[in-house]
Amino acid sequence: MLFVGGVTDPESTSYVAPEERIAAFDNDGTLWSEQPVVQGMFLLYQLERMAKKDPSLRNRQPFRAAFEHDKEYLHTAGMPAIVELFATNHAGMSQEKFDSAVEEFLTISKHPTLDVPYGQVVFQPMIELLDYLRANGFKTYICSGGGIDFMRGVSAELYGIGPEQVIGSSFKKELQQVDGKWVLSRTGKPNSFNDKEVKPVNIDLHIGQRPLLAMGNVRSGGDIGMLNYSQGRSGPSLQLLVNHDDEKREFAYAEADNASLNAAKANGWVVVSIKSDWETVFPSEQE
Amino acid sequence: MLFVGGVTDPESTSYVAPEERIAAFDNDGTLWSEQPVVQGMFLLYQLERMAKKDPSLRNRQPFRAAFEHDKEYLHTAGMPAIVELFATNHAGMSQEKFDSAVEEFLTISKHPTLDVPYGQVVFQPMIELLDYLRANGFKTYICSGGGIDFMRGVSAELYGIGPEQVIGSSFKKELQQVDGKWVLSRTGKPNSFNDKEVKPVNIDLHIGQRPLLAMGNVRSGGDIGMLNYSQGRSGPSLQLLVNHDDEKREFAYAEADNASLNAAKANGWVVVSIKSDWETVFPSEQE
Repeated sequence: MLFVGGVTDPESTSYVAPEERIAAFDNDGTLWSEQPVVQGMFLLYQLERMAKKDPSLRNRQPFRAAFEHDKEYLHTAGMPAIVELFATNHAGMSQEKFDSAVEEFLTISKHPTLDVPYGQVVFQPMIELLDYLRANGFKTYICSGGGIDFMRGVSAELYGIGPEQVIGSSFKKELQQVDGKWVLSRTGKPNSFNDKEVKPVNIDLHIGQRPLLAMGNVRSGGDIGMLNYSQGRSGPSLQLLVNHDDEKREFAYAEADNASLNAAKANGWVVVSIKSDWETVFPSEQE
Repeated sequence: MLFVGGVTDPESTSYVAPEERIAAFDNDGTLWSEQPVVQGMFLLYQLERMAKKDPSLRNRQPFRAAFEHDKEYLHTAGMPAIVELFATNHAGMSQEKFDSAVEEFLTISKHPTLDVPYGQVVFQPMIELLDYLRANGFKTYICSGGGIDFMRGVSAELYGIGPEQVIGSSFKKELQQVDGKWVLSRTGKPNSFNDKEVKPVNIDLHIGQRPLLAMGNVRSGGDIGMLNYSQGRSGPSLQLLVNHDDEKREFAYAEADNASLNAAKANGWVVVSIKSDWETVFPSEQE
């Protein structure tokens, strides 16, 4: 990659010291497929378990809408309903219990149409890009709207990214003593929804510098803020945007207002077409 | 160090994989001297500059108390007054402007009694410990009540710790477009006061796992929560507490309720006496 060659060449005018080689990636739709959003399936899996103990959940909103895949209801009810779904499931759960729940889900569940475990809906070219960047002294971060703890449950195994390099949405936690041991317990109070203009704020909080490379995808405009923030870096920087245009091998979808592609055009960001630019999409194709 | 020998020895029953070798350090009173708290001096320096432009500041509380070193007033007024002092100075300042202000302060200012620049009030044994841990595969973090951005302004140079491994108190920030460029601007709204039971919460947010080693100091009980949290780790862990008992070479002070030393005794934490355990305190002694 021409860009990486330049920033790692001490003789180049665009050389960047290793400690500033920060790469930030969105997760859903950038590192792995987001049709459906995997964490949504994890939530449903957890809610099904709750409904076995308390069947009345099936008749109460917003849970009913979740069980019946009533996207229209959830879209109209918006963020408060989404927060309630997550909060009801996660509140009061210790960090350790949550981690095992994620592990169990990933072992058992399968993608509805691709018919592979969710661990295999990662994008093969992105795995190779992450490896390539790390081999060139980059620190690779996830910065996604997904829940920070859910992503941490998969990031080391799937992407080689440790928990300290994952930035995501979160609920507030509290330190509590349970059976003599100090544990962090989740509350139902949102801490941060890591999307749009909040992504740069959380990148600053966690990393403390602008990313040299930032990569997101077309769907909701959620990555525009992060790519703008990266581009505002003094010195070189690179912004990339995945376009989902391959209904045969993955999925094809666009944004209603085309905001991400418009921003890419206006700012000179690189648009990556799954259809034209990726020889392989999923690891399973290589077997 | 016996502990480090064990966790890095693949043959040992207490071996810990490199990705779990997390060490978290308080800053004020642990990595450098806290009499006076350096960031307080930075704040005063900034407020003096503001008062030159707006002399009425000197007659208004809580600024007057700050200028007159009226500790009693500030103690009684408590957190809201402290927040107001910081917020008044920092609000609306871009990240880039803040960074240059910190740099300027560190170049110009001197410690009132030790008569050295603030960059030299670091503890020599702690610098050596940080180096030793990193040489043994540890990731070294700061987790302090100090402001995250203030500490990031000094952490790389003084401790070899990059901005992504600094956890501290913070104000909320907002993404804004200024003269066509996207910048993060500070608001006057507190985001997190990284002290006591909040330290484990922020360690979880930034690092995502319990520290294998945690080190704080005696003064306010502010590190007890972090050391408890580290000790709750599955498998080996080590907790250390600096006791300021050397009025000759540094300072001698204790806690009114003795909470930190009591916790150390009850939980088997290692207490480090500056007087008895440190041959050298400051780097300047070595010259």
